[in-house]
Amino acid sequence: MPRRDVSFLFDLDGTLVDSVYQHVLAWQQALHAAGIELSVWRIHRRIGMSGGLFTEMLLREVSVPITPDLLETLQRQHAEAYARLVPWVRPLPGATELLAYLTAAKLPWAIATSGRMISAQHNLRALGIDPASAAVVTRDDVAHAKPDPDLFIAAADRLGSDIHSAVIVGDSIWDMLAARRAHGLGVGLLSGGYGQDELERGGAIRVYEDPADMLRHIDEVGGRT
Amino acid sequence: MPRRDVSFLFDLDGTLVDSVYQHVLAWQQALHAAGIELSVWRIHRRIGMSGGLFTEMLLREVSVPITPDLLETLQRQHAEAYARLVPWVRPLPGATELLAYLTAAKLPWAIATSGRMISAQHNLRALGIDPASAAVVTRDDVAHAKPDPDLFIAAADRLGSDIHSAVIVGDSIWDMLAARRAHGLGVGLLSGGYGQDELERGGAIRVYEDPADMLRHIDEVGGRT
Repeated sequence: MPRRDVSFLFDLDGTLVDSVYQHVLAWQQALHAAGIELSVWRIHRRIGMSGGLFTEMLLREVSVPITPDLLETLQRQHAEAYARLVPWVRPLPGATELLAYLTAAKLPWAIATSGRMISAQHNLRALGIDPASAAVVTRDDVAHAKPDPDLFIAAADRLGSDIHSAVIVGDSIWDMLAARRAHGLGVGLLSGGYGQDELERGGAIRVYEDPADMLRHIDEVGGRT
Repeated sequence: MPRRDVSFLFDLDGTLVDSVYQHVLAWQQALHAAGIELSVWRIHRRIGMSGGLFTEMLLREVSVPITPDLLETLQRQHAEAYARLVPWVRPLPGATELLAYLTAAKLPWAIATSGRMISAQHNLRALGIDPASAAVVTRDDVAHAKPDPDLFIAAADRLGSDIHSAVIVGDSIWDMLAARRAHGLGVGLLSGGYGQDELERGGAIRVYEDPADMLRHIDEVGGRT
């Protein structure tokens, strides 16, 4: 890909911030409060897609009728359970260094998350990112979240970059699917707990352990200065 | 494998009981209390091996000096954190039905866990298993836990079965590694959150979603009545 066009679009949870497992248990607790028992690994495998799609898929899996009331209750219960677990959430190793490297190298980057700004802002603060000055696209800004391509397309637009040469970094197969549907180049990180093979089958052009490992290999994906 | 010899040896956490994610977060909290920050997915990838080996590998990864005091503190903090999360632990779908099927089919089965009886007993109770009458081998019974083969060899001995025709069911690559080292036949379950490819590369002869899915395919692995 030509050096002059490259941009980097990052997912947030599991990609820059170590929050996937807390989200997973918060969803289990929210579902339990609504009388729905679902294996935790099945919740983990759905994490990263739009909250609405996510709950609809899970409810379909357990054959529970989907009502607007139930969806709203689940979203609220999840937010409450996550708030109890959020003290354990940390930036992933190398996350701030990777973004600082891109900034210093004048390589444009943005964040595109399926979450809403109200929950993303804690994570952004932990990363030392000011949402007022950085390019951050959330669920609030688009009609459809991942695995639809809207978030990444909006993020590239925000940067004035061509989505075809965007490197789209995420930890879940929903990021990789959205990357392909956006015609960008998916890069997978293992830090959300998916297996390497799942991300490769999802279309990742490269898979790294976490942001620190990606920074060590940044030349492979257009990040040379 | 000849029908007359087959036996089934089960791991417990993540295989019969949905407890892996709670153990993972409990370890994160224990490590944090000891001043050690480690990405949650790295903890997840080590879960299932002996608690001693597990902490030693993690501490080596973060270059923290390993002292008997630190190991004991971590084990205690983990037990305390896990106790707070244990109300969310459930039997996995099909676990009790799978064991009941084997019992009815007069196919011998045993449980072999890297945990100690003090923590395993809650899980056994949730499964309706009486440790006094069922064949249960724990960390207390052997010199070395997984990925050493001792636990599975002891479990086969307990049943009077040949380890070479034992079907060894687990959710982690440490179960698969211990199964190969014991010269048994590993069967992987996705219910602990590992990917299918990781279990296949670990030597699983078959991979199923969870105990319910294994019961649906029991004929494939010598479980016909």
